[in-house]
Amino acid sequence: MEPSLTTHLSNKDEVSNVNQLVNKLAKSTVGQGDVGRTVLKVPKGTRDRNPFQMKVLEDVFGTIIRCFKRHDAVTIDTPVFELKEVLTGKYGEDSKLIYDLQDQGGELLSLRYDLTVPFARYVAMHKIKTIKRYQIGKVYRRDQPAMTRGRYREFYQCDFDIAGEYGPMLADVECLRIVYEILSELALGDFIIKINHRRLLDGLFKACNVPTEKFTATCSAVDKLDKSPWCEVERELCEEKGLPQETVDQIGKYVQLTGGVDLVDSLEADSRLMEQESAQVALSDIRLLLSYCDSLGISDRVRFDLSLARGLDYYTGLIYEAVLTGFTYDPKNTHSLDTSNSVTNNIESPSKQLPKSSKKKWKQNKSTNHAELDDSVAPVTSVEHLAVGSVAGGGRYDGLVGMFDPSGTPVPCVGVSFGVERLLAISEAVASTRSEKLSSVQRPTETEVMVAGAHKGLIIQRLECCRRLWDAKIKATFSHKNHPKLLDQLQYCESTGIPLAVILGDGELARGVVKLRVVSSRAEREVAYDAVVDEIRKELVNLQTY
Amino acid sequence: MEPSLTTHLSNKDEVSNVNQLVNKLAKSTVGQGDVGRTVLKVPKGTRDRNPFQMKVLEDVFGTIIRCFKRHDAVTIDTPVFELKEVLTGKYGEDSKLIYDLQDQGGELLSLRYDLTVPFARYVAMHKIKTIKRYQIGKVYRRDQPAMTRGRYREFYQCDFDIAGEYGPMLADVECLRIVYEILSELALGDFIIKINHRRLLDGLFKACNVPTEKFTATCSAVDKLDKSPWCEVERELCEEKGLPQETVDQIGKYVQLTGGVDLVDSLEADSRLMEQESAQVALSDIRLLLSYCDSLGISDRVRFDLSLARGLDYYTGLIYEAVLTGFTYDPKNTHSLDTSNSVTNNIESPSKQLPKSSKKKWKQNKSTNHAELDDSVAPVTSVEHLAVGSVAGGGRYDGLVGMFDPSGTPVPCVGVSFGVERLLAISEAVASTRSEKLSSVQRPTETEVMVAGAHKGLIIQRLECCRRLWDAKIKATFSHKNHPKLLDQLQYCESTGIPLAVILGDGELARGVVKLRVVSSRAEREVAYDAVVDEIRKELVNLQTY
Repeated sequence: MEPSLTTHLSNKDEVSNVNQLVNKLAKSTVGQGDVGRTVLKVPKGTRDRNPFQMKVLEDVFGTIIRCFKRHDAVTIDTPVFELKEVLTGKYGEDSKLIYDLQDQGGELLSLRYDLTVPFARYVAMHKIKTIKRYQIGKVYRRDQPAMTRGRYREFYQCDFDIAGEYGPMLADVECLRIVYEILSELALGDFIIKINHRRLLDGLFKACNVPTEKFTATCSAVDKLDKSPWCEVERELCEEKGLPQETVDQIGKYVQLTGGVDLVDSLEADSRLMEQESAQVALSDIRLLLSYCDSLGISDRVRFDLSLARGLDYYTGLIYEAVLTGFTYDPKNTHSLDTSNSVTNNIESPSKQLPKSSKKKWKQNKSTNHAELDDSVAPVTSVEHLAVGSVAGGGRYDGLVGMFDPSGTPVPCVGVSFGVERLLAISEAVASTRSEKLSSVQRPTETEVMVAGAHKGLIIQRLECCRRLWDAKIKATFSHKNHPKLLDQLQYCESTGIPLAVILGDGELARGVVKLRVVSSRAEREVAYDAVVDEIRKELVNLQTY
Repeated sequence: MEPSLTTHLSNKDEVSNVNQLVNKLAKSTVGQGDVGRTVLKVPKGTRDRNPFQMKVLEDVFGTIIRCFKRHDAVTIDTPVFELKEVLTGKYGEDSKLIYDLQDQGGELLSLRYDLTVPFARYVAMHKIKTIKRYQIGKVYRRDQPAMTRGRYREFYQCDFDIAGEYGPMLADVECLRIVYEILSELALGDFIIKINHRRLLDGLFKACNVPTEKFTATCSAVDKLDKSPWCEVERELCEEKGLPQETVDQIGKYVQLTGGVDLVDSLEADSRLMEQESAQVALSDIRLLLSYCDSLGISDRVRFDLSLARGLDYYTGLIYEAVLTGFTYDPKNTHSLDTSNSVTNNIESPSKQLPKSSKKKWKQNKSTNHAELDDSVAPVTSVEHLAVGSVAGGGRYDGLVGMFDPSGTPVPCVGVSFGVERLLAISEAVASTRSEKLSSVQRPTETEVMVAGAHKGLIIQRLECCRRLWDAKIKATFSHKNHPKLLDQLQYCESTGIPLAVILGDGELARGVVKLRVVSSRAEREVAYDAVVDEIRKELVNLQTY
């Protein structure tokens, strides 16, 4: 772990290329094929992922999973659909976005909306008292798709949760450390982790004389402060929610505050707020958490932010959300859909394998705004650093497992969910840019050797050579054509990044030798056929060394 | 690759334990929790996977993916649901098993039934001419669940397919080699790969005077020969399908034949069959394929079997199916559901982490029946070696992509799909048995170090120590309790297999040292706190060496 505070995307050209590519990749292979072929499309809000995108996904998921495993987590799997009643009453207004399966006789089923409710159902059903688990899977929301912003109807979530009766804020701070490690390691520029507390919001609304029945509505209006300026939220609170102007002014004074321990100090000096017991408890939690953040070395990324509210009903304590501050999104810069970047394993058209450049829609922020982190208790009036939206969010939900276990004791939980689609879109852009700069292909395969024929035929000979290599666990391939051209076989190596080729010929085979070619240098030498496995292994070590 | 012909489960005790466990694990965490809590269950035919099962899944999928990558394959991802019309007309009678989503306004959607049709849609939509891809994902079938036999409504498939216009049987034989490598490496005992050809069945039925309109019905009756004896299939063909006894007798003579090249020879000497052009073409394909199987060293696992028919409509050429011959299933040996093996990360109840022994329902066959492979042209009259059912199957489907591309050229395809649920159930049993024999825990985590406190408190100190370790990418954990007992912390290490513990104490910390404990030997030594990372790394190397 290198907890560097500087963005990892510092090279200017690289940044510019990234910006050009993010937009395209965020939309790639979305939606439909040609007009006129009605059946040739994927459902609205879903997409295919091509081999290059899958390579990035493997790398990003690998980083995330390694972090989860570093923190002693197990993993579980749950079905993609649940009994409809399991999801009922867990998502508030968003319940309308749940996909139901058709009643074909039997149970009423719904596609999972997140991984948290199925996890709580799992914990209750299997009578688990403590578990630290991660889970990666697709979830489903019948939302209005905004695929250019990475919002899909089918999308991956990566969740990490800790269930169990523990010391206050100890499991919570490990979740924040997880966010810190993963976003640092993915190296997608700067980020901040905003924290707040549900019970502080409760106390704050009460202190501002919001009627109890309007807490939820007030909460969801305040939550929009990451995308809208205060004046719009203010108007919504007055006009739509019907709160008195004086109450709204008081709310506005609070929810625009951000900071660190100093903010806890100043709020604890606020006698009207401190009359609310829930606010006292919450501020004591936040103070403890911030001290634990110091111990784990993540304080400079964590910001206490009173505007953070989060939509879901089930949160009961600490809430948090991580935001990349290195990118902004420009919705005016829209371009037509480009579905031409499908990637094939085409030996005839190796050029298809190269990613293409793209249009500009995202830009990376010049300043990385660390100053802001010290600029405590300053009102947030601009949205420019937040426009990419949250890439991870979570909180404490102590009541959810108990909802599935009417007889038993509740199991307190805290967790975090990574919205990996945005992380993937940006990572794809970064990967493509880097591979262009290095003039090397971002390889979706790991193949080490091409078994090629120098002339017509040699089918049996090529198969027998492949057999030797596969038996030795060497990653090898051959052309499935009966009479492939040598040039085509070598071009396939160059376009897909296969480093070595074994070239078979009748003359050489008669002498018990084959040619071993290093694709990058085009250097060829004869090796004894019986030694080909060892020679390949030596050459692979050489290539890794230089 | 070690193409060993002997079963890897040769130890008698081990085999017995495996047999006891297979049944339990095949059913574990299936279905419901306690009676009376209606909501506490998963949908019929689905299940959760606990951390031990996920560990086995990771290992099995890892083996499979390594093999796919060794063969130059890329991977793609497609949505879990498709437009309903994409799936329509692809599965014959089985279409009734497709899950439809409720019409909530907008498109009509269905859950994918397999990964093959979405792959063909992908190839057509993205105008791909050649690709070699693998894909692992869940598929959905509203079948009558038989979870004790590994038949679920939601289950994983692992598919490998090669699309492109190639020399005959070259892509096909690579698919067979893939099956051979994966089943050999998983080491689940002996297996055979049965092959046949759709066009041979066509010619054969025609030669036997089956009316063309009854080909499909005849085919599906013949396909049952892997589970039913010939007399039952004979009855079905006569009584239900209405074929004349003479025709059925002729069919019976053919479809009970199995063998190798000798069977090709004898069929090519059958003048009535050879009047059918499709039979000529098919036999020439099979002869070529068998010679390629020799070149790839897999002939002793491949058996030409005229009873193999396979259900799906889209096959056009070679078809194949792999069967484990080391296990049989005893349906009479049924036991009550046991849902108690949920696994937790419970520091208080570490014993929960141990797999429990189970009841007997499967048994491993004593003889591994290699003789049979040489016993060509012998009718199969017994089903005992086939009862586990197929663990992989596939074939050539040259017309499917074209169904999505009315204007364009067809893209020939051949592929194989692994029915991994059965492989997982058996692997789980093997893993549990082995861990019991070795008296070591089959670990679902990879954690290397527990940061423990020797006495009360030490919260900040434990956090700071974890920070050092996580910063150094060491896999570390700590108790989330404020005042955990040392004994509990050490027991957690023993029960979950964590090899090392760092023990903090006020006295030691004041002297700048900590205790480093090797859990297995209980040996403790003091190390300088500043050197703890290096000392842990040394100790981990030591533990791996011995």
